[in-house]
Amino acid sequence: MKQLTRGLIALAIGAVIWLIPVPEGLQAEAWHLFAIFVATIAGFILQPLPIGSIAFISITFTALTGVLKAADVLSGFSATNMWLIVSAFLFSKGFIKTGLGRRISYMLIARLGDRTLKLGYILALSELIISPATPSNTARGGGIIFPIARSLSSAFQSEPGPTANRMGAFLMQIGYQGNVITSAMFMTAMSGNPVIVLLAAKALNIDISWGLWAAAAIVPGLLSLLVIPYYLYKCYPPEITHTPTAKSLALTELEVMGSMSFGEKVVAGVFTGALLLWGTSQYTSLDATVVAMMAVSAMLMTRVLEWKDVLEEKGAWDTFIWMGSLVGLANFLSKLGFIPWLAKVVSANMAGISWIPALLLIIAIYVYTHYGFASMVAHIVAMYSAFITVATALGAPPYLAALSLAFMSSLCGSLTHYAAGPAPIYFGAGYIDQKTWWQQGFAISVINLVIWVGIGSFWWKLLGLW
Amino acid sequence: MKQLTRGLIALAIGAVIWLIPVPEGLQAEAWHLFAIFVATIAGFILQPLPIGSIAFISITFTALTGVLKAADVLSGFSATNMWLIVSAFLFSKGFIKTGLGRRISYMLIARLGDRTLKLGYILALSELIISPATPSNTARGGGIIFPIARSLSSAFQSEPGPTANRMGAFLMQIGYQGNVITSAMFMTAMSGNPVIVLLAAKALNIDISWGLWAAAAIVPGLLSLLVIPYYLYKCYPPEITHTPTAKSLALTELEVMGSMSFGEKVVAGVFTGALLLWGTSQYTSLDATVVAMMAVSAMLMTRVLEWKDVLEEKGAWDTFIWMGSLVGLANFLSKLGFIPWLAKVVSANMAGISWIPALLLIIAIYVYTHYGFASMVAHIVAMYSAFITVATALGAPPYLAALSLAFMSSLCGSLTHYAAGPAPIYFGAGYIDQKTWWQQGFAISVINLVIWVGIGSFWWKLLGLW
Repeated sequence: MKQLTRGLIALAIGAVIWLIPVPEGLQAEAWHLFAIFVATIAGFILQPLPIGSIAFISITFTALTGVLKAADVLSGFSATNMWLIVSAFLFSKGFIKTGLGRRISYMLIARLGDRTLKLGYILALSELIISPATPSNTARGGGIIFPIARSLSSAFQSEPGPTANRMGAFLMQIGYQGNVITSAMFMTAMSGNPVIVLLAAKALNIDISWGLWAAAAIVPGLLSLLVIPYYLYKCYPPEITHTPTAKSLALTELEVMGSMSFGEKVVAGVFTGALLLWGTSQYTSLDATVVAMMAVSAMLMTRVLEWKDVLEEKGAWDTFIWMGSLVGLANFLSKLGFIPWLAKVVSANMAGISWIPALLLIIAIYVYTHYGFASMVAHIVAMYSAFITVATALGAPPYLAALSLAFMSSLCGSLTHYAAGPAPIYFGAGYIDQKTWWQQGFAISVINLVIWVGIGSFWWKLLGLW
Repeated sequence: MKQLTRGLIALAIGAVIWLIPVPEGLQAEAWHLFAIFVATIAGFILQPLPIGSIAFISITFTALTGVLKAADVLSGFSATNMWLIVSAFLFSKGFIKTGLGRRISYMLIARLGDRTLKLGYILALSELIISPATPSNTARGGGIIFPIARSLSSAFQSEPGPTANRMGAFLMQIGYQGNVITSAMFMTAMSGNPVIVLLAAKALNIDISWGLWAAAAIVPGLLSLLVIPYYLYKCYPPEITHTPTAKSLALTELEVMGSMSFGEKVVAGVFTGALLLWGTSQYTSLDATVVAMMAVSAMLMTRVLEWKDVLEEKGAWDTFIWMGSLVGLANFLSKLGFIPWLAKVVSANMAGISWIPALLLIIAIYVYTHYGFASMVAHIVAMYSAFITVATALGAPPYLAALSLAFMSSLCGSLTHYAAGPAPIYFGAGYIDQKTWWQQGFAISVINLVIWVGIGSFWWKLLGLW
């Protein structure tokens, strides 16, 4: 389909909604903002232009038509959570630039890597270790873990094509699915997570701190990280199972890297400090954004990060603009009363259904609509607020609804080869065909639902969250 | 001097101010913010790190010490004027990328360029034509006009060194000084101008629209653009005065460019539209930022500007971060009462002086402190608010004080070879030695003072502004 056609479809969707008479109980601005919002999301899905362009055009239109004032339209750009994301992108850059991420993985392989399954667990463990400081899950997956998975595969003569299943396909699956799981585990492990915290605060008036998020996610997260690689090992087995030479390979890589550089030491120190400060934020009441900014400042002062690195970190600016635009619009969808109104209408139509089946249905819809999204964050901004508001309006406990959908926002990434930033990277390596990816992705989404919602909800009960 | 030493000096300056007991009548936060602010400006001048790094570290420190809340520290990033600047950077990119700016200059040369003085006026006129849409005066000067001045010089065998004075030195002077003058003429001709509007609104509660700015600047601006090239022609004469071959040179260039491309036509149309909307904003009440965003949106929709152009426009992101940081801090210097307090203290010490000599003294100090700055915007953010507040506290009419200092914020750029972004570019070409630059720069600053403050103030009186 041509770009122009796709653009016109997105516009038409917005125009139709705009022209529908404003429903009773709603301001005209709220309804028109909803029309713009839907057209924007349609644009994100159809992509007649890059999503940054669409977001920029969309806020321009919103200000031009006076649906929102210019200052309100731009309000997302000074949200602290947006700067947590920018700072954390820059933090990741330090990890990649200095090579510390690679070193951690190779150290683990040198100690433990004598079997293919263990190599898989090591990839997942490496993901876990660095995830709290790499909210760009694309940078973490694509920049740090993927290259290791790729070079390990080659080292064992597993290339795309006939030898893909010797080891490469297996490691690619674990690399990617591990990324999806760790993305759900820390507020700072995926760029959409701070947005979730913001949206949950606005919609349900609940405060999810860095520590609370980590505590709620640690049990289901570790379970997933144990179960999924094992599941893949059983249902998608690599032909090579023993890798006696992996340790020496890793040692060679470590030798090439030499001893830890000044930059690596700084990043390691800053990372440890940031983890400590994030983990203790309930006592120090230090904002997570301020901690991330301190980490970046430390790297700037030591010149481990140069200012030109900051300016060249296009991923940060891309995310900042389109997400900041959308966060501004989404905030005002709530403020102008659209989300509460929607929740009231939907829950009135679902009256009589008890909250447990309702919540399960809502979670399932939330997860599987991700087939339509090429970005976790777009999905979150489009649907998270409305879904948690409806769920709680139907009687679901706020934290239960907010956390289930928060974690599922990352975990739905398992589904497709375009579901999240690292997906096209792992898929593009050519080890896994689309059919296999979708089949395994669906199976894994079910396993994750059972672990995170099924078992997780008991854990959150134990934590006293509902 | 070593980077570290310079950094420590900036820190020490801040620390000393911080530790001085808080003056009576001032909150501790206001005083501490002032200490941070001065240290930041000291950092901008001493540059132990790039100014972006310094700004980022500075807002981090402000949030960390609780002098301001994180959300307040970041408030500059959603200021509409910041997004006017970002949008206008992207607008300039369209001018440069499509070659429309070059075409305009060559067309003028092909019509009028038979004498060196006329070539000088053509450079100034080209600057004038495109300046309303190129708030990055560096992009305009360095990206569009400088290359033309440089290639014209070469075409007449004037190179740096013995042949510099044949023509090159003269054209470089006019190119640069023309840039300085046009920067003062439109709200959208220099990135600091929207900041001035913001600061004037906060400090004096006056509203300077795009049209008001242009109306107030047009008479002194045109006068300067007439007088300065002629002054240079007399006092710094080029050896070649007749250029009969320039027209054919320009025609050749135009032939190489071919007919106007689609992109050029779009930029020309968008530019005309934006000028119309900016000029009529008092009737349409369309925000200048929204107009600039519309222009960028139009270029994005037609793909004259690609999204990757946006992400690669490092100048925009650099300016956005450091200026947004500083604007946030500067706003709160006013909000927390520091600027009014300072104005009260200074004016109490100047009591008895009538406002006319006081204003002249203030303007002179404002202009010549620019010897200490490598950026017009840094100078503005550091001093503009305080200076206009003091001037009006001493009895100067608000618009007179605000406009004089607004225009001088650009015009002080004449002084040094590092005074503003395009200065090192023109200086770096090697046609003009530092001594000449400083001598001519000082003389031109005096001429501009006479034209803009001396004659300009009568024009503003006629306009009913005071």
